Amino acid sequence: MKEEIDFAKGNGLVPVIVQDYRSREVLMVAYMNEEAWEKTQVTGKAHFYSRSRRGLWLKGEESGHFQVVKDTFIDCDNDTLLLQVEQLGGGACHMGYKSCFFRKNSGEHWDIVGEKAFKPEEVYKK
Amino acid sequence: MKEEIDFAKGNGLVPVIVQDYRSREVLMVAYMNEEAWEKTQVTGKAHFYSRSRRGLWLKGEESGHFQVVKDTFIDCDNDTLLLQVEQLGGGACHMGYKSCFFRKNSGEHWDIVGEKAFKPEEVYKK
Repeated sequence: MKEEIDFAKGNGLVPVIVQDYRSREVLMVAYMNEEAWEKTQVTGKAHFYSRSRRGLWLKGEESGHFQVVKDTFIDCDNDTLLLQVEQLGGGACHMGYKSCFFRKNSGEHWDIVGEKAFKPEEVYKK
Repeated sequence: MKEEIDFAKGNGLVPVIVQDYRSREVLMVAYMNEEAWEKTQVTGKAHFYSRSRRGLWLKGEESGHFQVVKDTFIDCDNDTLLLQVEQLGGGACHMGYKSCFFRKNSGEHWDIVGEKAFKPEEVYKK
């Protein structure tokens, strides 16, 4: 299992796509190291490696918007993971949208087309 | 448009998730540099930067399995793109599966669960 994931290729990190397990909407992309992988397996909640904070990150630790992992897939190169999750709290994006991919290319601009799920100022108190 | 994409963060490359525009199945993940972005905009077909070959890669150039871009999204950090495409030829994976994420975590193994779309030996002649 873990042995097959090629963490070395990305200097200890693999990109992880997170997708809603029902709608299949792509919610976000984050990164896992071995520790984050193991914590995710043990708890059933998505953990990542925060590149900005340089440490383990339980998604939802502040907001309560945890991601309950339903299924996990690996790609043909063994260097990318796909999680199908139940997104608690309605949204994955720290800006309050359901998905981090809430802006679409119109040709001239990136237009906001995503669905707002919560008010960030009410969720992030720090 | 292009100016807003943060290519610098990943040393000139951004990860790109490719999703079937109808079923929303995640097909693959690849990388774009500025040139690949521009070629994709001009042609409407997904172009990437091949890290192994170190050059521009028109997806489907050998197989004929081009990806016709329907919509493009950018994430909240401006460092990841999402393409919704029409996958020609039935499959995105060079191993003949519809999606590169054709193996699922069973707890003990990565089980093959993906749908086979073509025979690689008939598609890749080189």
